[in-house]
Amino acid sequence: MKKKFINIGLIGYGTVGKGVVKILEENKKIALRKVGKAICIKSICDLNPIDKPELYVKNFKDIIKDPEIDLIVELIGGYEPARTIIIESLKAGKNVVTANKAVLAKYWNQIFTTAQDCQKSIYYEASVGGVIPVVQGLSEGLASEEILEIKGILNGTTNYILSEMTKNGVSYETALKNAQVAGFAEADPSFDVNGIDTANKLAILSSLAWGSWIKVKDISVKGIADLNIEDVLITRDFGYDIKLIGCAQKTKNGIDLSVQPCLVNHENAFATVENEYNAVMIIGKDSGDVLFYGKGAGQQPAASAVVSDIINVSKFIVTNTAGIVSDVIYDKKKKIKILPASKSKASYYLRFSVLDKSGVLAKISGMLGKHKVSIASLSQPDISGNDYARIIIITHETCRENIEGALKQINATKSIVKSKTVKIKIEI
Amino acid sequence: MKKKFINIGLIGYGTVGKGVVKILEENKKIALRKVGKAICIKSICDLNPIDKPELYVKNFKDIIKDPEIDLIVELIGGYEPARTIIIESLKAGKNVVTANKAVLAKYWNQIFTTAQDCQKSIYYEASVGGVIPVVQGLSEGLASEEILEIKGILNGTTNYILSEMTKNGVSYETALKNAQVAGFAEADPSFDVNGIDTANKLAILSSLAWGSWIKVKDISVKGIADLNIEDVLITRDFGYDIKLIGCAQKTKNGIDLSVQPCLVNHENAFATVENEYNAVMIIGKDSGDVLFYGKGAGQQPAASAVVSDIINVSKFIVTNTAGIVSDVIYDKKKKIKILPASKSKASYYLRFSVLDKSGVLAKISGMLGKHKVSIASLSQPDISGNDYARIIIITHETCRENIEGALKQINATKSIVKSKTVKIKIEI
Repeated sequence: MKKKFINIGLIGYGTVGKGVVKILEENKKIALRKVGKAICIKSICDLNPIDKPELYVKNFKDIIKDPEIDLIVELIGGYEPARTIIIESLKAGKNVVTANKAVLAKYWNQIFTTAQDCQKSIYYEASVGGVIPVVQGLSEGLASEEILEIKGILNGTTNYILSEMTKNGVSYETALKNAQVAGFAEADPSFDVNGIDTANKLAILSSLAWGSWIKVKDISVKGIADLNIEDVLITRDFGYDIKLIGCAQKTKNGIDLSVQPCLVNHENAFATVENEYNAVMIIGKDSGDVLFYGKGAGQQPAASAVVSDIINVSKFIVTNTAGIVSDVIYDKKKKIKILPASKSKASYYLRFSVLDKSGVLAKISGMLGKHKVSIASLSQPDISGNDYARIIIITHETCRENIEGALKQINATKSIVKSKTVKIKIEI
Repeated sequence: MKKKFINIGLIGYGTVGKGVVKILEENKKIALRKVGKAICIKSICDLNPIDKPELYVKNFKDIIKDPEIDLIVELIGGYEPARTIIIESLKAGKNVVTANKAVLAKYWNQIFTTAQDCQKSIYYEASVGGVIPVVQGLSEGLASEEILEIKGILNGTTNYILSEMTKNGVSYETALKNAQVAGFAEADPSFDVNGIDTANKLAILSSLAWGSWIKVKDISVKGIADLNIEDVLITRDFGYDIKLIGCAQKTKNGIDLSVQPCLVNHENAFATVENEYNAVMIIGKDSGDVLFYGKGAGQQPAASAVVSDIINVSKFIVTNTAGIVSDVIYDKKKKIKILPASKSKASYYLRFSVLDKSGVLAKISGMLGKHKVSIASLSQPDISGNDYARIIIITHETCRENIEGALKQINATKSIVKSKTVKIKIEI
């Protein structure tokens, strides 16, 4: 049976949901040309009454059981009831579009196994990188590749905050407020600033890249909330920008997965990624490096990605072929080896605040050396007028357990150290 | 009937063809995991005998009529017999993968109408941007977008040559030889250096973006072969790099389509695209700017894109659903309005070589003004020791017919002009 039109049930009518309705209305000719049938929003479910009462449905279950609805668009975010909505929709024979990275990263196996068992499609391009088509780029465009590394600026909120700090020299707290005013940070920004949002997206890309479910708990995660403007300004003078980078790298001892603030020099592809923009670099064995760049936050970019998914899945719905080819192919039994975070290698920026007396530098370099941390460069900026001295060290590449062992010993040596040493990874 | 494995007939066993065979062999586990069935090369056709005699087929018609072959990979390039191979393959019920931008740009309607009529798939990601998944990014990732502009560095050979000229200050001829030695330029590089290859790719992207066949003849094309190293060095000092840019822009009077060498300043996203790399910027109404970047030339990147296409279409072949959803959706009757090249707007770099006498500058600025070309900046570098003077002018934005009218008049004024004025577009 060929469909006359595609009926959508939209669950979640917040910023992105409203953007989806707007774009579907404004670009209906584009959608019609690509799908061959009109796309109609039949029902909208939200906790609160909405500005389109004729479409309003209070209980999402009524949307899932509506036999006229072909496609359910889940935009409420979070774990529950999002998981229930996705699973029950697939079981009810609906195709699904979602922008929910949290639920995908947490219930990857359950969601894609259900989709496969029910032969239904689930599209989720908007879950990673905002408007950037990186999910498809990785899973289809680079389908033939042995993926060696994925790294990206995957969170528009934190990138906006870090851009503000770098450009304007303001504190984290001020930058966060500016981001909230500009509409790029939520009232409660914790999932963004503590790195969890980036980790969810990295888990999704890594699971796609290596064909097995890589979990958020496999990722070593550090956010940006304790970043000191002092370090932003010092490293800026050294020619670095600070970015929150999610990185997954294939090593011979397992996949090395981390989310952390990183210093990038001005020649790095990420250095020019400012404000709400995201960028993802994928390195394959044959492809070399492939970069995707675009807006990672904001109503229109996110809604645009959702509507593109709606159009793409609708092309299959009208020919009754949606879900026949699985969207995510992976081996449930395949176990991916994860590199312990302690074995992760990097070079670091270190800022020591030490007592201003002779012999301190020798002690610090001795303790670093004992833990096999080798110094690439060292400087002691003049901060006269203070009762302490500052030592800036850039290390050569070293294991995380080595640097942490050294800093633990140094920080515990109260006879030389005034306050806890700051450590930031340098991204090459 | 579910397939046991996918049989491929490969036509064209040059650099990319050999790369495809190598990647399919090396990454067969990746392909098997994604497709669910093994992908086998059953036959290879080439003009000359090959290193795999057991697979060699002399006549491509024998591959097309082989009932066991599911997928034909056309890698011979050029118009014929490539067109015949693609059309006859589709008619014989085969799906097709091609990297051939020339044949696609020239026979767009015939090829996609045949594919639609025969309900077969044609994948062609490798035809544009090398390994960059921009065909899919544009047609699916940005499916919902009203596309406002596409611009890109789409030819690895010319970008390599221009990088050599800029970095090493060598002439076009020397840079071309270096590119040939490095394997990034063919013995006969004319399609690359005269801009036709870029125009083919721009025609493909534009046809996808605006849903109607946009032809190469609609594009104003200028290559790089007459670029003078003098201008590369002068503009480098001004903070510009020279890139060959294909640009398609929606204006209220039609699509403005051009391929030409352009000056980009160091803040432009294209400035850092060096050597064999390509980059494509797509600007949508809701998405804003989205950038794709990666290797545009070289055996492995091109072959990687072809193998990804093979994997993607094979997923549909194993479930007998390939070609049911059309790959390219367009309206044969829809006419796209093209902006005449004379109406295209840009600002320009102009280098005048004039007789070294008083009053010349006044005459030149007068003639520019008469044609409504306004001067943004002007300099007369000291080139004493020569019998002529040099005037460098950067114009404000102006219509191409204005600037060409002014230069025609100026160049014809033999009493002031020593040699033909150089004009290069400035890309903002």
